[in-house]
Amino acid sequence: MARLNCGVIGLGRLGFKHAQNLAGRIEGARLLAVSDPLDAARNNFSAGFSAVNVYEDYQDILKRKDIDAVVVASSTNTHGKIVIDSLKAGKSVFCEKPITLDMEEAGRLRKTLAETTGYLTVGFMRRFDDAYAYGKKRIDSGELGAPVYARCVSRDPDCPPIEFAKNSGGLVLDMCIHDIDLARWFIGGDISRVYAQGGVLMWEELGKIGDIDHVDIDFTYKSGRLAHLEGSRNARYGYDIRTEVICTKGAVFIGGLRQTACVVLNRNGSLTDVVPEFLTRFDKSYEREMESFVSDVLNERPSAVTLEDGIAAVALAAAVNKSLKLQQPVEL
Amino acid sequence: MARLNCGVIGLGRLGFKHAQNLAGRIEGARLLAVSDPLDAARNNFSAGFSAVNVYEDYQDILKRKDIDAVVVASSTNTHGKIVIDSLKAGKSVFCEKPITLDMEEAGRLRKTLAETTGYLTVGFMRRFDDAYAYGKKRIDSGELGAPVYARCVSRDPDCPPIEFAKNSGGLVLDMCIHDIDLARWFIGGDISRVYAQGGVLMWEELGKIGDIDHVDIDFTYKSGRLAHLEGSRNARYGYDIRTEVICTKGAVFIGGLRQTACVVLNRNGSLTDVVPEFLTRFDKSYEREMESFVSDVLNERPSAVTLEDGIAAVALAAAVNKSLKLQQPVEL
Amino acid sequence: MARLNCGVIGLGRLGFKHAQNLAGRIEGARLLAVSDPLDAARNNFSAGFSAVNVYEDYQDILKRKDIDAVVVASSTNTHGKIVIDSLKAGKSVFCEKPITLDMEEAGRLRKTLAETTGYLTVGFMRRFDDAYAYGKKRIDSGELGAPVYARCVSRDPDCPPIEFAKNSGGLVLDMCIHDIDLARWFIGGDISRVYAQGGVLMWEELGKIGDIDHVDIDFTYKSGRLAHLEGSRNARYGYDIRTEVICTKGAVFIGGLRQTACVVLNRNGSLTDVVPEFLTRFDKSYEREMESFVSDVLNERPSAVTLEDGIAAVALAAAVNKSLKLQQPVEL
Amino acid sequence: MARLNCGVIGLGRLGFKHAQNLAGRIEGARLLAVSDPLDAARNNFSAGFSAVNVYEDYQDILKRKDIDAVVVASSTNTHGKIVIDSLKAGKSVFCEKPITLDMEEAGRLRKTLAETTGYLTVGFMRRFDDAYAYGKKRIDSGELGAPVYARCVSRDPDCPPIEFAKNSGGLVLDMCIHDIDLARWFIGGDISRVYAQGGVLMWEELGKIGDIDHVDIDFTYKSGRLAHLEGSRNARYGYDIRTEVICTKGAVFIGGLRQTACVVLNRNGSLTDVVPEFLTRFDKSYEREMESFVSDVLNERPSAVTLEDGIAAVALAAAVNKSLKLQQPVEL
Repeated sequence: MARLNCGVIGLGRLGFKHAQNLAGRIEGARLLAVSDPLDAARNNFSAGFSAVNVYEDYQDILKRKDIDAVVVASSTNTHGKIVIDSLKAGKSVFCEKPITLDMEEAGRLRKTLAETTGYLTVGFMRRFDDAYAYGKKRIDSGELGAPVYARCVSRDPDCPPIEFAKNSGGLVLDMCIHDIDLARWFIGGDISRVYAQGGVLMWEELGKIGDIDHVDIDFTYKSGRLAHLEGSRNARYGYDIRTEVICTKGAVFIGGLRQTACVVLNRNGSLTDVVPEFLTRFDKSYEREMESFVSDVLNERPSAVTLEDGIAAVALAAAVNKSLKLQQPVEL
Repeated sequence: MARLNCGVIGLGRLGFKHAQNLAGRIEGARLLAVSDPLDAARNNFSAGFSAVNVYEDYQDILKRKDIDAVVVASSTNTHGKIVIDSLKAGKSVFCEKPITLDMEEAGRLRKTLAETTGYLTVGFMRRFDDAYAYGKKRIDSGELGAPVYARCVSRDPDCPPIEFAKNSGGLVLDMCIHDIDLARWFIGGDISRVYAQGGVLMWEELGKIGDIDHVDIDFTYKSGRLAHLEGSRNARYGYDIRTEVICTKGAVFIGGLRQTACVVLNRNGSLTDVVPEFLTRFDKSYEREMESFVSDVLNERPSAVTLEDGIAAVALAAAVNKSLKLQQPVEL
Repeated sequence: MARLNCGVIGLGRLGFKHAQNLAGRIEGARLLAVSDPLDAARNNFSAGFSAVNVYEDYQDILKRKDIDAVVVASSTNTHGKIVIDSLKAGKSVFCEKPITLDMEEAGRLRKTLAETTGYLTVGFMRRFDDAYAYGKKRIDSGELGAPVYARCVSRDPDCPPIEFAKNSGGLVLDMCIHDIDLARWFIGGDISRVYAQGGVLMWEELGKIGDIDHVDIDFTYKSGRLAHLEGSRNARYGYDIRTEVICTKGAVFIGGLRQTACVVLNRNGSLTDVVPEFLTRFDKSYEREMESFVSDVLNERPSAVTLEDGIAAVALAAAVNKSLKLQQPVEL
Repeated sequence: MARLNCGVIGLGRLGFKHAQNLAGRIEGARLLAVSDPLDAARNNFSAGFSAVNVYEDYQDILKRKDIDAVVVASSTNTHGKIVIDSLKAGKSVFCEKPITLDMEEAGRLRKTLAETTGYLTVGFMRRFDDAYAYGKKRIDSGELGAPVYARCVSRDPDCPPIEFAKNSGGLVLDMCIHDIDLARWFIGGDISRVYAQGGVLMWEELGKIGDIDHVDIDFTYKSGRLAHLEGSRNARYGYDIRTEVICTKGAVFIGGLRQTACVVLNRNGSLTDVVPEFLTRFDKSYEREMESFVSDVLNERPSAVTLEDGIAAVALAAAVNKSLKLQQPVEL
């Protein structure tokens, strides 16, 4: 059986997860190397994976001829540059979202991809979640009629670490970008008007660095279809990700709160737990998107999530942030 | 529009509920009189219903020519005698379950009914619950194939008052009799073998009066079909009534725990309340069974629950109690 | 016991429901008269309630000295005038929402109320729903911290009859007004900015009369708190009313889809029904709000929902409609 | 880091799953060899795992000095013999349930274990399921009082392949043995009386080989506590595994039907899928029990599930089968 020799660039939470999956769980994958500029991240990784080369500089991965593909999970603000370098080094690329923070760089990404391997995918892992994939399949079957309205809720239970938040691009680019992608995926067609309201409802420390903890986003599509997205850091009860798609003959509701299939009952009532955070909720999705990446590259299939998907989501996120600033709708 | 003039015998919790329903909520009914041997019960009732005659002796109701129908909700051990008196007085009769505690009296009931008004029904109110009625309808439609197994759970959240328990006939006759009726209703056909295990798991005071707080009941039908019934006073979390019917092409699950459509969420998880007790859960069923009673008598339709249903349930309850005593199955 | 003698003006679906409740279910109430300009509505009512006077002209109710209180459930565009007439005739008044469609009339209502009986309440019946009332109580207890964000969904399963829709005031005034009231009730404080997007996603016939079938509404409060409201006629699966209130220490989720506590299972999966329409979902709420009305008037308590609540909701609805027209936020 | 070198004996569905887990997912494990008498099973395995030695005869695994531990997942009727051989060869042993079908062999297992490695565990994987483990933890915390009643439901959606059923030991030994173990685990203490009713409700082909497709099992404990277990092949809607434990201050309900967090809604209602079969439901549990096995052996900790647990379950299963045959309770 053919094997895809892989490298992982960046060993933060997601990079570590991708490396683990490529090392032991993904059929057809072989993890050869990882890199991270931080000593602590490299040491933490080395302890568990003795057979994998660990570099400080990602260029050492790109130089290796025996490496076919790389996963880019570095700091958000380095994504664009590392992806371009990787493509130029002849690698197939999986890049964590967002693909870039800069629309000018988006143009360079397009150009580089056209001139190189042609394989680039973006980590919109929710598309690979069982529930999202199943919901999409049911809608695509046509049995529910046309999808005309999407409602997405994404709520984190906590303020992110302030150091992380500073480089994350803010609530919209860091978190809502998943829902922006879902709104595009489920409804389809161009979005013509964007409005957003938001602010700091709970975490004043976010306000101090210019970020917010809540946003409501309205999308009007050219076709007249609509979407509403909520992003929040304020769900003190747990991690809460849900999407509802209204179709002309029915609807699909995706997501739920419960983590463990166990109910504890006493005089106060019936108590269930709630999903605590994203790695628990989407553990399987991260595995599935790596499977898809490895299998697409090995079989020379086009990527399931394209560069254009990645760029469109970033452009919409920028419009949302502009609307928040202007307190006015933004026409696209 | 024709009106059915009604009397209610017995003003305990259920008698009071039936009187309220007949007085203000049941189309076609008019409540003329009630009776109860206890002063407190009569006074409590008089306060709210000034237009209704209140008697100490139920015979005063039976004597009235202008009363067409009576609801018997007196102490369990008086049911049989009062029903016979009522039928002989020419009344149509609704009797709370169990219809009798005595198989000899069952014979006299049969004879009296045959010689008199011909209308008698028994308060198996669960058959009138929306969820039970809907489940039965879906099974009767045939879409799910033949019903081959029924599983019934009935759990009370508390020990009943000991004075009530003493005259209630015990756990099986007081509580499980509803599930015994449901097992007959859903599966159909004769039951050939009964086994039960049970005892006192929580409320020692019940043990002292010869009652139990938990029973598991197994029914083998002549057809080979099966049922299992659990009755309990030990659900400290609330009132818990559920039935599952397995059919050859599917199944129906009836009942649930939640009372209020409200979820309270905090760091401990997701909390919903639980139905507290039977009058809350089956409020509407009591109204529906009165509607059915009044409408059946006015329209000269046969009763939805028959004397034979009432007697069969009592006979099965007796077999359960015998099995508990012998610690052996009882063949019927 | 004191009795409140009542009249009902308007015998549409809601007027009929209120009349039924006052006639047989509400302790302390006596229904003496009803009125409706339509022969069919009067005849339909007369068949069931022989003891109640039925008039064509509501003035015949107002003239009667023996009538203490009236329920106004006439066509939306007549609410304001009939309420003013009723107050001037010395009646205590319950008025269906919206209390008026006209901000000038709102001023006259204020003036009239100040000069007359002083008792006026508006039919925001959701406040009387068990689940909403329970959720509010839990929030008011303080255990969940401060409420900072409300998310309301109201979806009807069908296009309303076009003749009804023409006089209803449109989606926002007819339907979203409930959620506008809830957003005020749960979050509190003034709203400073309103934005809305909406249109026709499904029912072109609504577009032809200038109405819409979907709206997304954003509220920014002066305090910085936020709310989002969705109103829709497009839930082909049933009647779907839910509210989520995010608090600084937890959250409350109110509402749900299931009508009957019965699950039907087969090879396709697990199927439950969905609430079909509003009278089924809120049957008990309509009863409770009448109980509250009757009991408040009899006991000379202030109304639970005030004229100012009614006017504030109408003013916000007008701002929503203005934003829809301008495709811009509206500052208040 | 220390590594446990493992072999897997038997490459049926479970053996294959264990081999996969040991090869790529279990920290500290290394899979060196597998065996199966069937060519097809060996070939199927070889295709995916080129680095693992594949034998026809399990003795070839036992002979290898470099193998520390074996997983026995061969045909049920060979478990006892292979476990004894493995222990004698100095291996630590994980054996699939049931550990034996023969109480005489149980004695030899006890003796051999005492004389050899001392490490043997049995595959009661439900104890490693998140929901079961969480429920047990909450009960063990004492917050819910003493566990006094357990109710277990295990329903398969289909008749097993008849060739498999013939060697499976029948419904009770093959399937209910999990619930027998859970009843012991949750309630504790000796069981004094067993009764069972059962038969063929759906699959006549099972009757022809002397098996049944439904059983109800009653356990009376010496302490007076009780349990009821249902085992069935008749859940046409899916794989349905649930346990309820009633405690003196509350309860724990474990398990549920839904597989995918997606609801499809249309005019027929609200539809969710159902877990299709055991490997989907308990995928993670199989991984967790291997982790526990590998980690216990490496760290010289006693096994979480003991030989005595394995033997007690088999002895109870035998009593159930005896009761079914005699149609009488069996005293232990």
